[in-house]
Amino acid sequence: MFELRKEDVGTKARLGTVKTDHGDIETPIFMPVGTLGTVKAVKPEDLVHKIHAQIILGNAYHLYLRPGCDIIEEAGGLHEFMRWDRPILTDSGGYQIYSLSDNRELKEKGAHFKSHLDGSKHLFTPENVVEIQRVLGSDIMMLLDECPPYPCSYEYAKESMELTHRWAKRGREAFLETEPHYNHRQFQFGIIQGGTYEDLRKESTDFMMEQNFEGLAIGGLSVGEPTELMYEMADLNTDYMPADKPRYLMGVGTPANLLNCVALGIDMFDCVMPTRNARNGQIFTRDGIINIRNAQWKNHHKVWDEDFPSDVCQKYTMSYLHHLFRNSELLGLELTSIHNLTFYLWLMEQIRERIQDGTFGSWYKGMAEQVGQKI
Amino acid sequence: MFELRKEDVGTKARLGTVKTDHGDIETPIFMPVGTLGTVKAVKPEDLVHKIHAQIILGNAYHLYLRPGCDIIEEAGGLHEFMRWDRPILTDSGGYQIYSLSDNRELKEKGAHFKSHLDGSKHLFTPENVVEIQRVLGSDIMMLLDECPPYPCSYEYAKESMELTHRWAKRGREAFLETEPHYNHRQFQFGIIQGGTYEDLRKESTDFMMEQNFEGLAIGGLSVGEPTELMYEMADLNTDYMPADKPRYLMGVGTPANLLNCVALGIDMFDCVMPTRNARNGQIFTRDGIINIRNAQWKNHHKVWDEDFPSDVCQKYTMSYLHHLFRNSELLGLELTSIHNLTFYLWLMEQIRERIQDGTFGSWYKGMAEQVGQKI
Repeated sequence: MFELRKEDVGTKARLGTVKTDHGDIETPIFMPVGTLGTVKAVKPEDLVHKIHAQIILGNAYHLYLRPGCDIIEEAGGLHEFMRWDRPILTDSGGYQIYSLSDNRELKEKGAHFKSHLDGSKHLFTPENVVEIQRVLGSDIMMLLDECPPYPCSYEYAKESMELTHRWAKRGREAFLETEPHYNHRQFQFGIIQGGTYEDLRKESTDFMMEQNFEGLAIGGLSVGEPTELMYEMADLNTDYMPADKPRYLMGVGTPANLLNCVALGIDMFDCVMPTRNARNGQIFTRDGIINIRNAQWKNHHKVWDEDFPSDVCQKYTMSYLHHLFRNSELLGLELTSIHNLTFYLWLMEQIRERIQDGTFGSWYKGMAEQVGQKI
Repeated sequence: MFELRKEDVGTKARLGTVKTDHGDIETPIFMPVGTLGTVKAVKPEDLVHKIHAQIILGNAYHLYLRPGCDIIEEAGGLHEFMRWDRPILTDSGGYQIYSLSDNRELKEKGAHFKSHLDGSKHLFTPENVVEIQRVLGSDIMMLLDECPPYPCSYEYAKESMELTHRWAKRGREAFLETEPHYNHRQFQFGIIQGGTYEDLRKESTDFMMEQNFEGLAIGGLSVGEPTELMYEMADLNTDYMPADKPRYLMGVGTPANLLNCVALGIDMFDCVMPTRNARNGQIFTRDGIINIRNAQWKNHHKVWDEDFPSDVCQKYTMSYLHHLFRNSELLGLELTSIHNLTFYLWLMEQIRERIQDGTFGSWYKGMAEQVGQKI
């Protein structure tokens, strides 16, 4: 499933290809988040032609509740339902159970939770999240895990990790005993936990490797810990991860995070930040981060960057974009959502080119500083 | 400015061309409403390539308040500001003063009003709305008028009409004494008032004709009166209107209204209905009107009409569109907004073709019934 094409010399960055029946994915890659079967405010055609998205995310927790598995199965799977014929990765919903549901209870069997929508009771088990993701038909499915909060005690992190490990064994078994519902292959990724404790992270990495998942994800980060600690944990995890499997750092991050984590050997990223922040008027650019709602843009009658291939940069003036946001016009949300994703995917392409030509190591730190500054 | 190309035999329908420096407009035409310098939820490129909009509307009241005339003037006019290079018609804001502002006072000089946004005080006069629309740079500007409510007494309707007439003279004078701010011609349309009183409507039509405006609008309709009464008044107005000027029925209407009013000799329409109703989940189709939020669509896994050229009809299933609306996804608002406008413009094209080939009279009533039914 994964072809490692190049390893950088000065950093841990890698070039690779993830091969799915819906097409190849060039890594390092960022995956736009389409929680409910739509990347918010963006049309699928713009994902393809403007953003150049190679793979997007769906979320099993959300889709299981709305529209429900029966609807998706009748539709012929998530690809058919949302008219997206490139790869899809689905999260199992573990993270959402902890972040969205007030009434969750973890038992050995699985995670009992009440819907954040209507309070109805549900149970996710390592086995049924495989089944749910068989129904969704994602190209890559994730395990059910527990994602402990930050900070958390060593004891909690260890017990939580051990539960995730027992669930991982059951989930892998369920995956191996079942077949895809549609005419394409599915892969399953393990999720490494262990809080911010080095020995647990190592133990969890070793454990997940033994289960022979098609890929490995680093979970439990980007949950409130300091950025430096996140880098430290990612660095440590990738040291122990095999070279021949794709490495996915879940829920990360800012453009600067992406640059730094690629240098630590990460291949795949997802985050709601480019779209969520777009809807709040935050625009990511080559020069840094702009808040288009700020009064300074009211009279700025020029385009921001006529050489960057997005309408936000080269077609509309800052004054017009400011006007759209000040008046809550939907066009503003769409334009900035498309732009931010275009920027994220452009950044990943730059990263791949730099790894390819051997200049990544001398470039990424300066770039991370540049794209991270507030304008 | 206007070329009358054909008059229908069995009805009062006409084919014509309105010529502006931003391009020709084939009439009868529907004009999508872009109140604040954006047609809500629709990108300009989709207005051109998907919807085939020939002209859009802007609103002087709204744009004067936000972003303000200084910003639009600095931007080089509304076309430049919103990146739209086809014709624009701007309403003077008369209607908005009456419908949005709680604190309005009509005096001979003009309309005093408080902003519906911040309560700030403003005065619109027949002269300064010309100046505002010079700044906006619309291809067609409208007079300041008073739009009386329905129902209203004969006395009120008569006095209101007479005020509108005095303002019309002043507005025309201001127009003739001033020059465009940008490098394209501007035209000015008069607005016929007179409530629902036949003699006043006739008197107002005659008066407006004498001022030699480039076009004539029928105002004061679609304000709550029964549909039949609206048709009656439009019918009566067009009887008295000259054949060689474009006729614009303001604020109308449903697809059935368009068909019936074209038969009464109307050339131009505008209405927020296709976009506003789209945002509420109402979809206009060849077969009638669909409310996509209704439970009946939850399990409808087919596209609605694979032969109609819009994504709502031929790309996405009803089940998926229902899902988007049930979850307030922005993609739903965009898709239905694009679709409804595509449908309106498609309907106008059908109308023009039917007038051209002489089949309009035998077709429009059945079509009005068909497109008006609830599905």
